[in-house]
Amino acid sequence: CLFPILAQAQSNVTIFGLLDVNLAQERANGLKRNAMDTSELNGSRLGFKGSEDMGNGLKAIFMLESAVAIDTGTSTGFTRQSYLGLEGSFGRVTFGRQYSPAFVAIDPYEATGSSDRSAGMLHRKSGSVARGYQVRFDNMIKYRSPEMAGFSVDAGYWTGAENATNDSDLRRAGRGYGLTGMYKGGPLSASATTQRYISNNTGGTATTHGLGAAYDFGVVKLYALYTQDREGGTQGKGKARSYSVGAEIPVSKPGTLAISYGKRKESGEANTEDASGASIYYMHNLSKRTTLYTAYTRISNDGIANYGFNITPNAGDNVSVIMAGLRHKF
Amino acid sequence: CLFPILAQAQSNVTIFGLLDVNLAQERANGLKRNAMDTSELNGSRLGFKGSEDMGNGLKAIFMLESAVAIDTGTSTGFTRQSYLGLEGSFGRVTFGRQYSPAFVAIDPYEATGSSDRSAGMLHRKSGSVARGYQVRFDNMIKYRSPEMAGFSVDAGYWTGAENATNDSDLRRAGRGYGLTGMYKGGPLSASATTQRYISNNTGGTATTHGLGAAYDFGVVKLYALYTQDREGGTQGKGKARSYSVGAEIPVSKPGTLAISYGKRKESGEANTEDASGASIYYMHNLSKRTTLYTAYTRISNDGIANYGFNITPNAGDNVSVIMAGLRHKF
Amino acid sequence: CLFPILAQAQSNVTIFGLLDVNLAQERANGLKRNAMDTSELNGSRLGFKGSEDMGNGLKAIFMLESAVAIDTGTSTGFTRQSYLGLEGSFGRVTFGRQYSPAFVAIDPYEATGSSDRSAGMLHRKSGSVARGYQVRFDNMIKYRSPEMAGFSVDAGYWTGAENATNDSDLRRAGRGYGLTGMYKGGPLSASATTQRYISNNTGGTATTHGLGAAYDFGVVKLYALYTQDREGGTQGKGKARSYSVGAEIPVSKPGTLAISYGKRKESGEANTEDASGASIYYMHNLSKRTTLYTAYTRISNDGIANYGFNITPNAGDNVSVIMAGLRHKF
Repeated sequence: CLFPILAQAQSNVTIFGLLDVNLAQERANGLKRNAMDTSELNGSRLGFKGSEDMGNGLKAIFMLESAVAIDTGTSTGFTRQSYLGLEGSFGRVTFGRQYSPAFVAIDPYEATGSSDRSAGMLHRKSGSVARGYQVRFDNMIKYRSPEMAGFSVDAGYWTGAENATNDSDLRRAGRGYGLTGMYKGGPLSASATTQRYISNNTGGTATTHGLGAAYDFGVVKLYALYTQDREGGTQGKGKARSYSVGAEIPVSKPGTLAISYGKRKESGEANTEDASGASIYYMHNLSKRTTLYTAYTRISNDGIANYGFNITPNAGDNVSVIMAGLRHKF
Repeated sequence: CLFPILAQAQSNVTIFGLLDVNLAQERANGLKRNAMDTSELNGSRLGFKGSEDMGNGLKAIFMLESAVAIDTGTSTGFTRQSYLGLEGSFGRVTFGRQYSPAFVAIDPYEATGSSDRSAGMLHRKSGSVARGYQVRFDNMIKYRSPEMAGFSVDAGYWTGAENATNDSDLRRAGRGYGLTGMYKGGPLSASATTQRYISNNTGGTATTHGLGAAYDFGVVKLYALYTQDREGGTQGKGKARSYSVGAEIPVSKPGTLAISYGKRKESGEANTEDASGASIYYMHNLSKRTTLYTAYTRISNDGIANYGFNITPNAGDNVSVIMAGLRHKF
Repeated sequence: CLFPILAQAQSNVTIFGLLDVNLAQERANGLKRNAMDTSELNGSRLGFKGSEDMGNGLKAIFMLESAVAIDTGTSTGFTRQSYLGLEGSFGRVTFGRQYSPAFVAIDPYEATGSSDRSAGMLHRKSGSVARGYQVRFDNMIKYRSPEMAGFSVDAGYWTGAENATNDSDLRRAGRGYGLTGMYKGGPLSASATTQRYISNNTGGTATTHGLGAAYDFGVVKLYALYTQDREGGTQGKGKARSYSVGAEIPVSKPGTLAISYGKRKESGEANTEDASGASIYYMHNLSKRTTLYTAYTRISNDGIANYGFNITPNAGDNVSVIMAGLRHKF
């Protein structure tokens, strides 16, 4: 019973989005899950952004980006990205909830990208080691440099829990910083990052280091990524190292194959959760904006590890997931 | 203190909506409620939708539709509709949170439409019988056929709770399907539907059947609707049958009168909740997009039935509600 | 991984917004808070509004305005403003969640406007006296008159909790009304308001009276404001009177200074919470839409008063906050 009659309106805002929906079956020993899921290749989102040219090359820029679960309609606020800032010849400074410098460095160097259920999850999961690699932080001041001779920098500082107190450990809880250097030159691109934050109320820390590189041979683009999460102070002495290698192969005009293999090794704590995994994704573009895909990932858990996606397997049980879906950008 | 300065922006998205606000008084024996309410003639909403033509008659389509309580500003996610899909000469296939096939069949054949507080509620309410007729389901794959010789089909399957388990009853909880056939030819339109889902964690079921028809004589459009909710398995043995008849009468160029009478009869369980009710709505179009309306509904509860709208009356007490409101589409 | 490709779309909706982010340090005796905050000069928001011209000077108008915490991305519904209504030569009548008449009268007469952490908070805070001055109410019917000889009226009535009951005190809980008269003539503007609502479930009341005026001398605009909150019936016998004076001074083409001093005096109850405070704001326009600002506010709490912003100080402790931020309108 809705008859929208369209008339002209103008705005300083660009609306954009991406929707990604799939059917998936995940299995572990004795457990099975059949589902419709959202956000496999990329996170489903609806966003509002804008830019005001204020002269002399100075711009005001903003972004409000909401996560959308297309399978259920659930959406809460602009928690994917929410920032306001200034951009000029000096680069850009933005304030708000933003991607961490570690994410900016690490995400492009998994061949299966930011895919939700790829072997790349072994870089992002924490297990028993406190995770330094968080994708986003609230209350972040971020600086992105211009590119010079292929090099650029992404640096962030965030305020954490913002407790009002005379206890300096409580006041610093959640506070952190990250620094990423990036290079792009011809077929080669690479990045290095370090990110640290106060991970508890008594001054403990979680630190991430990362190194990524990719080389595009044309017939295949190769990827390599190393990340390390390390605890400090009252947080403990755990350490987790994750490696992955991958390749992206254009198999036809509309079709691309992406494969990755990853391994995670923990140390320094009694209970270490080690695992390895592999993924294969096939993406078929129906248009520049719309893609069909299918994918398979398998995670092999060692010892007490119980990594999974929507299943939490028993310790040491392997998990596999098979998916087919549709992604649309607007 | 806001001075929006407008400039051009372009987008693949159409924003649309409908807002419906009214003043209402509901009464039952000893109870009264005076209120401003939302969503009487139709659900208040704000939506974002789009369509990409990919050539060869193939389109990508999406819809994100949020419910808005205009009286309080409350709104949560895109829980009215949220889907992505493909459309072509084969019809359309969409994935996400969507209207159930039963809703598609039943809703057009109440003369007072999907009005919130009409006698049509006797089709939608459950009482002590588990309700097969749900308006929307998450995680639905939906197929809508093209129209052929006036006939079309709307079919859906949804995954339910998506529990990760080795218990097949738990895994099937909430899962369901629906199938609707529709016909339109000249003044006659009609539909038939069957919808079933797993209504508990032990394999019980709730099933809806529905038959609707309307005939437009010009001076009056007549409506008839029959629906049945039936329990199965561990859910019980209850059955609820609801009938309604109605008429839509254009009384002037801008004015339309809609009347309906409905009856609900439950059986098969000890505690049956029977009721009947009647509604009269008058809608006055100020423009194609804006409508003033006033309405009155009375529900007569039998025995232990206590159907109401924002009032829950004592068993057997009747409920009436009188409303006046404004609806605007954009 | 997002490549929005833009194409034309049209709509009856105007999207607008305002984002305001700042870095702040608040201090009280023994307490300190360093933070990134949102909504200092104005509340951060994203809104959708529209207007349909229906001929004969009659318009349908709507507004859906969401609050956005730009520092964290948090946003919940359209709880800033959400209304639908009609506008014509008679004025406008709107229905939904709206600014209270008291807010319309009082807010323009604090020199530091609706700033979140200005001395103006002494008008808005309640302490131990129930507050009559609320900024917004749900379920409001509002009338705004046209301006005649500089005079206009803003009147509202709201339904409150909308309890369905036979207890008339419960049914009236939260119900209220407000009436504001406004004048604008040359350099002078002024307002007077009275607002009352049922503040508890037993018929108690909270009432606000307010008087504001401003005079623009060109080199400086002076402001004066008086407000009073008064309890009645079962709510108690408390009374709070707040005064403020302020000035807005254009110090350069892009720069404006705003200063204010306020005082709050409570009486009629055993525990009175008195305080005074002063604010200075400097705003520097980078463009018509984008403003840099810095501000300082200090609140002096007397006796048992413990007013603060994000800090709740100990009784009688003073609070100060220093801020620097960026505001952008779109």
